[in-house]
Amino acid sequence: MLWNDTQGLKENMGYLLDKVKADRPLVHQITNFVTANDCANMVLAIGGSPVMAIDQAEAEEIVSPASCLVLNLGTLTSDRVTAMLLAGMQANRLGIPVVLDPVGAGASSLRTRSAEQIAKEIKLAVVRGNGSELRALAGLRSHTRGVESAMDLRQAPFAKQLAEQLGCVVAATGAQDVVTDGRRSLLVNNGDQWLTRITGTGCMATALVGACCGVSNDYLLAAATALTIMGIAGEKAAGDAAEAGNGTFRTKLFDHVSCLSSSELKLGAKIVME
Amino acid sequence: MLWNDTQGLKENMGYLLDKVKADRPLVHQITNFVTANDCANMVLAIGGSPVMAIDQAEAEEIVSPASCLVLNLGTLTSDRVTAMLLAGMQANRLGIPVVLDPVGAGASSLRTRSAEQIAKEIKLAVVRGNGSELRALAGLRSHTRGVESAMDLRQAPFAKQLAEQLGCVVAATGAQDVVTDGRRSLLVNNGDQWLTRITGTGCMATALVGACCGVSNDYLLAAATALTIMGIAGEKAAGDAAEAGNGTFRTKLFDHVSCLSSSELKLGAKIVME
Amino acid sequence: MLWNDTQGLKENMGYLLDKVKADRPLVHQITNFVTANDCANMVLAIGGSPVMAIDQAEAEEIVSPASCLVLNLGTLTSDRVTAMLLAGMQANRLGIPVVLDPVGAGASSLRTRSAEQIAKEIKLAVVRGNGSELRALAGLRSHTRGVESAMDLRQAPFAKQLAEQLGCVVAATGAQDVVTDGRRSLLVNNGDQWLTRITGTGCMATALVGACCGVSNDYLLAAATALTIMGIAGEKAAGDAAEAGNGTFRTKLFDHVSCLSSSELKLGAKIVME
Repeated sequence: MLWNDTQGLKENMGYLLDKVKADRPLVHQITNFVTANDCANMVLAIGGSPVMAIDQAEAEEIVSPASCLVLNLGTLTSDRVTAMLLAGMQANRLGIPVVLDPVGAGASSLRTRSAEQIAKEIKLAVVRGNGSELRALAGLRSHTRGVESAMDLRQAPFAKQLAEQLGCVVAATGAQDVVTDGRRSLLVNNGDQWLTRITGTGCMATALVGACCGVSNDYLLAAATALTIMGIAGEKAAGDAAEAGNGTFRTKLFDHVSCLSSSELKLGAKIVME
Repeated sequence: MLWNDTQGLKENMGYLLDKVKADRPLVHQITNFVTANDCANMVLAIGGSPVMAIDQAEAEEIVSPASCLVLNLGTLTSDRVTAMLLAGMQANRLGIPVVLDPVGAGASSLRTRSAEQIAKEIKLAVVRGNGSELRALAGLRSHTRGVESAMDLRQAPFAKQLAEQLGCVVAATGAQDVVTDGRRSLLVNNGDQWLTRITGTGCMATALVGACCGVSNDYLLAAATALTIMGIAGEKAAGDAAEAGNGTFRTKLFDHVSCLSSSELKLGAKIVME
Repeated sequence: MLWNDTQGLKENMGYLLDKVKADRPLVHQITNFVTANDCANMVLAIGGSPVMAIDQAEAEEIVSPASCLVLNLGTLTSDRVTAMLLAGMQANRLGIPVVLDPVGAGASSLRTRSAEQIAKEIKLAVVRGNGSELRALAGLRSHTRGVESAMDLRQAPFAKQLAEQLGCVVAATGAQDVVTDGRRSLLVNNGDQWLTRITGTGCMATALVGACCGVSNDYLLAAATALTIMGIAGEKAAGDAAEAGNGTFRTKLFDHVSCLSSSELKLGAKIVME
């Protein structure tokens, strides 16, 4: 289905969420050990099926039946990069979309170089990162402080340029999320400051992008849908956690992703077509 | 204690749970990074004491004081297999039971070969897997899709055959669990579909099998007890989570394993001797 | 600020907690995969910013902008030790405090030797461990059973001696925590038996020590503040979990660390200057 206005876009987002639940896409994640459990549980919460594997020896075999491949550079090792390249090339050969999360690009040359190498050698569907990570990936000077982003409210033009440069959808998350394929851009205004109070919400958002790309080849729509779901769930969980704290927020975030219906998604989406 | 009927079996299950709490068995797990935290917390929830270590250099030392060794093939690497073999052989020398979870056997040749090698070189107490993993371990054609099982309601005869082939207890989990040593078979009808909505419930069940094998050399009883506990806790957590979602289910699963008394276990067990 | 009596100490602890929330110290943790997620979330809960990286290739780069480096020996590998030494030496060059958690020292020679090597080659700010781990680090005979401590109510004199030997603060946790720099000693009587029912509370306490050392060079104060926060949060979570169980305790532990105000800290602290 095509979408030309916000209403059509929201209809498509609801349809895509229902399709994830119907198709249960298998999402292979080569990822870090800090948030791996959260990323697997997020794929399950939205309705997909996660698989995780890191050894080069099985990278190609594991990705082959998958609906999507997610490459996440957290707690990266040199060996891991080789497995990512092997899995990514196999995914490219089979037409399986590849989503990259360049965690910590700009914070070390290992991360920056690896992100660049993957973006160069693998045809990507979506890159999801924060402002400073994407800036590093673009070859611009970046000051990634640990794994946090310097917020940049003017990142829309930059994201567009990077999308053209990489030939893929760029999903830049922050106070406002920007999703763009270089021609069309969507601004997602869902989310809550609470999402920065627990670890891994960026990784989890990328895992959701993976699940959505597993059922649609409109990757702009898929990425925007995933970020909107994460944002709405974050808003709801923030309400539950206000009187409780970080542990409750985390638990409720999974609750709300798992319970969100397509009609709630359409109602709650604060999305603008630029 | 011997058990010849369902009532005697349930009495023994209650006794075994009390013994775990009294003896606090040390369970060494060589396992994956996705569910390691959950597996450690499950061992604690039932009353045991977990230890995790993966380096070949310490495999033999760490397992030596343990009451049980659990080998879990999730996020496997070639190095890890060597550590598993070293720890497993030391466990065999010392009479410490070894429990294998062949995560992803059938999904890659690394997993299938490693599971076969471990089953060949190590004397196992219990193998706990889903239908397709066990099929792969038996050398049969398997279609493991990621880490999920193709449910097979007729897996009892197959499990019996595999138990004879491997000379150990086979615990095949699914909608109905089958636990067999090749001669005697037990069917566990506890559990809930909710257990498939979060990651790692298979790994966690294996961790509980490890804790139970740490206090009894009746491994058939131990495996059935562990799966029944997981099933009852899953049923209770499903009730709590119905109006909430996946995050709450996960939290409550640990709550109910940790609170289950031996009398509740005996009352709640839906177990059939075949 | 100096502190010469218990009241002054508590004032400083409150001030330090507020400073963590104001400064958001970046805490680089080279740590194990079992509790990494919990350790990252604890740093966030107290108000800091976590970053995790393990590869030797990026060890020096990642630590350079950090406020503190935490080295945790859980699920240790030989490669990991090299990364720890590189990061530790860089931290020493830049005046960044280094906190060591010798998880499992005494349980294998890899762990004991690595802990000794790190303590010898790196100038440490704080070592946080249980009685048997610290005993092993001191070169004394130790019977570390897995990752658990043999409680030792008379560990104060030993901790003092070790602090002098290592030239750093020693934080020995158990039923009563002892924090000492060899000259001054503080006894922390907060905490609850519930803290031993879930995995990783020792690692999490060390992560909190790291966050506190990131904003103060009074490491004795910093370590005592962190352990007191963990203890008070544990007491509160135990109240919440009494009717629920282990899963709820874990969730509430994060809630209470994240919500604890400096005035609640000062009121709840059960601390004695020896």
